[in-house]
Amino acid sequence: MTARLRAGLIGLGMMGRHHARVLQSLPGVDLVACADPNGDPHGVAGQLPVLTTVTDIIDAGVDYCVVAVPTAYHYDIAMELANAGVHALIEKPLAATSAEANDIVAAFAKAKLIGGVGHIERYNPALQQARARLENGELGDVLQVATRRVGPFPARIADVGVVKDLGTHDIDLTAWVTQQTYASVSARAAHRSGRPHEDLISITGLLSRGSVVNHLVNWLSPMKERVTTITGEKGAFVADTISADLTYYANGSIPTEWAQIAGFRGVSEGDMIRYSFAKPEPLRTEHETFATAVRGEPSAIVTLAEGARTLAVAEACLESAQSGRTVDLNSADPGLA
Amino acid sequence: MTARLRAGLIGLGMMGRHHARVLQSLPGVDLVACADPNGDPHGVAGQLPVLTTVTDIIDAGVDYCVVAVPTAYHYDIAMELANAGVHALIEKPLAATSAEANDIVAAFAKAKLIGGVGHIERYNPALQQARARLENGELGDVLQVATRRVGPFPARIADVGVVKDLGTHDIDLTAWVTQQTYASVSARAAHRSGRPHEDLISITGLLSRGSVVNHLVNWLSPMKERVTTITGEKGAFVADTISADLTYYANGSIPTEWAQIAGFRGVSEGDMIRYSFAKPEPLRTEHETFATAVRGEPSAIVTLAEGARTLAVAEACLESAQSGRTVDLNSADPGLA
Amino acid sequence: MTARLRAGLIGLGMMGRHHARVLQSLPGVDLVACADPNGDPHGVAGQLPVLTTVTDIIDAGVDYCVVAVPTAYHYDIAMELANAGVHALIEKPLAATSAEANDIVAAFAKAKLIGGVGHIERYNPALQQARARLENGELGDVLQVATRRVGPFPARIADVGVVKDLGTHDIDLTAWVTQQTYASVSARAAHRSGRPHEDLISITGLLSRGSVVNHLVNWLSPMKERVTTITGEKGAFVADTISADLTYYANGSIPTEWAQIAGFRGVSEGDMIRYSFAKPEPLRTEHETFATAVRGEPSAIVTLAEGARTLAVAEACLESAQSGRTVDLNSADPGLA
Amino acid sequence: MTARLRAGLIGLGMMGRHHARVLQSLPGVDLVACADPNGDPHGVAGQLPVLTTVTDIIDAGVDYCVVAVPTAYHYDIAMELANAGVHALIEKPLAATSAEANDIVAAFAKAKLIGGVGHIERYNPALQQARARLENGELGDVLQVATRRVGPFPARIADVGVVKDLGTHDIDLTAWVTQQTYASVSARAAHRSGRPHEDLISITGLLSRGSVVNHLVNWLSPMKERVTTITGEKGAFVADTISADLTYYANGSIPTEWAQIAGFRGVSEGDMIRYSFAKPEPLRTEHETFATAVRGEPSAIVTLAEGARTLAVAEACLESAQSGRTVDLNSADPGLA
Repeated sequence: MTARLRAGLIGLGMMGRHHARVLQSLPGVDLVACADPNGDPHGVAGQLPVLTTVTDIIDAGVDYCVVAVPTAYHYDIAMELANAGVHALIEKPLAATSAEANDIVAAFAKAKLIGGVGHIERYNPALQQARARLENGELGDVLQVATRRVGPFPARIADVGVVKDLGTHDIDLTAWVTQQTYASVSARAAHRSGRPHEDLISITGLLSRGSVVNHLVNWLSPMKERVTTITGEKGAFVADTISADLTYYANGSIPTEWAQIAGFRGVSEGDMIRYSFAKPEPLRTEHETFATAVRGEPSAIVTLAEGARTLAVAEACLESAQSGRTVDLNSADPGLA
Repeated sequence: MTARLRAGLIGLGMMGRHHARVLQSLPGVDLVACADPNGDPHGVAGQLPVLTTVTDIIDAGVDYCVVAVPTAYHYDIAMELANAGVHALIEKPLAATSAEANDIVAAFAKAKLIGGVGHIERYNPALQQARARLENGELGDVLQVATRRVGPFPARIADVGVVKDLGTHDIDLTAWVTQQTYASVSARAAHRSGRPHEDLISITGLLSRGSVVNHLVNWLSPMKERVTTITGEKGAFVADTISADLTYYANGSIPTEWAQIAGFRGVSEGDMIRYSFAKPEPLRTEHETFATAVRGEPSAIVTLAEGARTLAVAEACLESAQSGRTVDLNSADPGLA
Repeated sequence: MTARLRAGLIGLGMMGRHHARVLQSLPGVDLVACADPNGDPHGVAGQLPVLTTVTDIIDAGVDYCVVAVPTAYHYDIAMELANAGVHALIEKPLAATSAEANDIVAAFAKAKLIGGVGHIERYNPALQQARARLENGELGDVLQVATRRVGPFPARIADVGVVKDLGTHDIDLTAWVTQQTYASVSARAAHRSGRPHEDLISITGLLSRGSVVNHLVNWLSPMKERVTTITGEKGAFVADTISADLTYYANGSIPTEWAQIAGFRGVSEGDMIRYSFAKPEPLRTEHETFATAVRGEPSAIVTLAEGARTLAVAEACLESAQSGRTVDLNSADPGLA
Repeated sequence: MTARLRAGLIGLGMMGRHHARVLQSLPGVDLVACADPNGDPHGVAGQLPVLTTVTDIIDAGVDYCVVAVPTAYHYDIAMELANAGVHALIEKPLAATSAEANDIVAAFAKAKLIGGVGHIERYNPALQQARARLENGELGDVLQVATRRVGPFPARIADVGVVKDLGTHDIDLTAWVTQQTYASVSARAAHRSGRPHEDLISITGLLSRGSVVNHLVNWLSPMKERVTTITGEKGAFVADTISADLTYYANGSIPTEWAQIAGFRGVSEGDMIRYSFAKPEPLRTEHETFATAVRGEPSAIVTLAEGARTLAVAEACLESAQSGRTVDLNSADPGLA
């Protein structure tokens, strides 16, 4: 029989409250300590006292800690957890900079600890399905992955720009779903007047085995979109991670004879299938996956190295937007798994 | 009273048949000669004999000629028309190469002839509305123009790749709708095995006054899309040129309180308005506009210089996709109006 | 080898021009005469002289005649054709009244002539697919057929109300697609002030083997809809006859776990499939089907008896709307095939 | 200053848990007692003991009680609350039969107590907007209200058929949004083999000032819909209560010239506007509204008389489906407010 895991949670804000809810109902896991210097605004701590620091949580004796604080604090907290020998699931992005992220990778590796990054989109049922079906060869070679992650400006304050805050979702999911790394990126960005970080970015890139990528990421659009379109030899997948839908458009083999239809539907059509499949909540899957890894069993977590690599790609996008030049990703980057 | 114009048409294929239909009903214009070395497969010539060459048309005595032949033949035909003193409306892309296009520009300028390019999307009611409303300041500054022009592989044989065949629509409409030129482009392309030209391209670029651009263009997608999304300070326009719809998404000012709705609609919503407006057929508007110019009146045609500039941008995209580097557009390019 | 058929066309208005276009390109058929007392406003007669009356057409010597004149004239023209021994494809509705329709049925039967009615929706590829798949048992028993046929007020002048003009489409397609007759109908209608006929009707009814039917028909709605939803034991078909799409929603077997998704998608989901299939133009299929019948071969035309039965159902709906009572359909009605 | 209200809750099942959540955060209200003979399966009682009966709740001393138990128990519990002098907000449908509902109306009237019914759709922001805009004359006269409330079979066990369980939503919202009563209904129903109650119903009816109504209600459809379409003189409103959207389609005044567009969009188009507005959670609005009434202030609750009238209409639909005849609603019905 497996022993129950003792989990801690630092950060009880917008994301922390959801982590608390899931941790409180996770089989085989007990949430034994939580902390937030700002208290418990959403009232999710339940019977637990609300501690102040990660040190308090470590002192409570935990197997692992979930880190859901502003990105700027990730580095110090992660290093303290590594030093204390505590496994950690850290919200995305892994750190404020690629350099910090690489240090975290090294510290957890040295301490032989399990470290995970909260790139939750990877656990969205729509993308889990897409991954499984790509693995199964249902699209053949992937020619292009194009994502749109746009919407209104978030209520919460972000301490990084939109690339690190939202774009890292797209970078992580694209690399994972295609099982490729980024070879190069070209980006252009814009921001609203008076703001320090970019609010909008357009990225064109190339993956390691030749797939083209395109990312549109911003928090300036009135309409919310979370769409990933994967174009392959045999058709296209469109994953909508808001509704957790995966839709397959087969290549058409029947020419469309009726002129009026061909005008808006194209010269041919294939079947369009929106698949049905189990849709567990992504955050729950993320937690179950991480707890499994902490127990020492094989488990598909987002590794710290992947999180660091994603940050390196995000920084390459920012560098490209700054310089106006294409940036090649160094495949010898220490963040590369 | 205005004299009637005598028009000729060379090319009676997929596009030519539509030009014939419109020319046959255009007020003040008589289609007096048509030619196609392959005859009249769609039976649109009506009472007119089907001639063979542009020389035959010139000999018939025409004020202007519409050129709807494969791109490879544009140069020779355009030069012959220029030499004969005949105005010309030439299908897009203007020529197979930027160099040829620049020669056509020079020849028509020297002969003081009216030359136009058939970038028909510009005449789509949705984009005409967008242009008018941008001019009116309804979006404020334009932060980004993103287009998607994808669909199944066309039945007709194209003698150029997808950038010159379809992407030139996006380049032309983006430059026109924003009244900016392209400053730089970064592109990545892909093609199906065994094909000489690119079938898919992803482009990120920058316009002359700082707007970001993004184009996804291919003929490998099972689903047809013709969408232009313009993101501005005050909201976004989405133009669908298949349905000729322009939809405005206002920035939201009311936070969305109901958590379930905010999850899929975003933290705030503004009004969404699909405008109603007159929707004349774009090809008819294109022809009316050109005929007006031939009569010497002010008219918003797509100039040959604009057509050449668009080709130069398309070639910069191909160069970028080839080299893997960002390409700056030379604003001193002879094609720049 | 089959002899070519000689066809005539009376009526060159909104529908007549489409009949002319199709007749001019129909294999094995020659359009040899056309007539319209109002001439040829759309210029579709081509080389043919535009005659005035159906007598003129009969005198020209035709195997069959297509009748595309206002409904009020159907009766006289149909009777003249029957007397002259000419087969006829008559636009829907078959006649202005059920009584007239029954007389036409009798006259054609007595003269042993082929008579068809232009209920074109039945030839829409979406409904042809639905019919074939129902026949194949893909939905199991049909519990309900619900149609919506609404839109803006038509430009053309209708000489009957919306039930006979548009609602007969729904009655015909529902009876055909389910292979049932109408057992009873209850209806409520409304009209705009100052208009003699109803402009809107809501109908609830029962078919002969127990399927429930529901029709919403009007020309007062700003948005155009042509939707048929067939709910069966194993799922639902939604046919959109504007886009000629048939979409299958399978009953769900997987409970939706993620609460946020279940909120808008329901407690379970099944696959949703928009089928691809050949989409010939319905009017062409209607003509091919009729010409085949004229040649004496088996062919799925809409018979005059079916057209008369459809009119009887439409009149029952009007009677119900008038009286406020449910009206049972007499299954011994002479119009019943 | 207003004294705080003491509220009780009986029923902690699927709906009860949501009532608990809202009551726990309602300003000026304390949830002081809750009861469910089946305990607290969703763990929402918090610090409160889980009592067993409504008597226990009455004994705890409450100003009002929310009743969220199976419909069969409404009558006994409501009567006990009335006898005890406790105001009550009772889930819909008010009771299992119209007769029981009328008794509840009488008992609360006699005891001068506030009674409300949980017809939550009326508090959906989309319908609140529709109501306000109709009141404001934005559609002119209402010609028709058509609703669709279909979806997969619910996980919870319903002890009534679909008309009383779901159809009462449509009946209540239609009467309220139009401020009319039902004059007559004609209905046809179906059920899956082996089930005692109807699973599907199609209803056509007439309201007291002449508006036509149409309701499609079932839990046999694979796809979930919650749509109300209100067709008026000046255009149409479409309310989707899943997304809480209200969309206005203005009547078109501009004929659609481009034939390809007119084919699928209709002969004219008007603006289409999806309004933005505050979207509070409907259950919260329902509770705030009821608490205000308990405090003796004017408040737009769903009265018991309205709830009883809605049940009477539902029973008329069942009677019509049974008899195959149209049923007139007795406007002198005691349930009529």
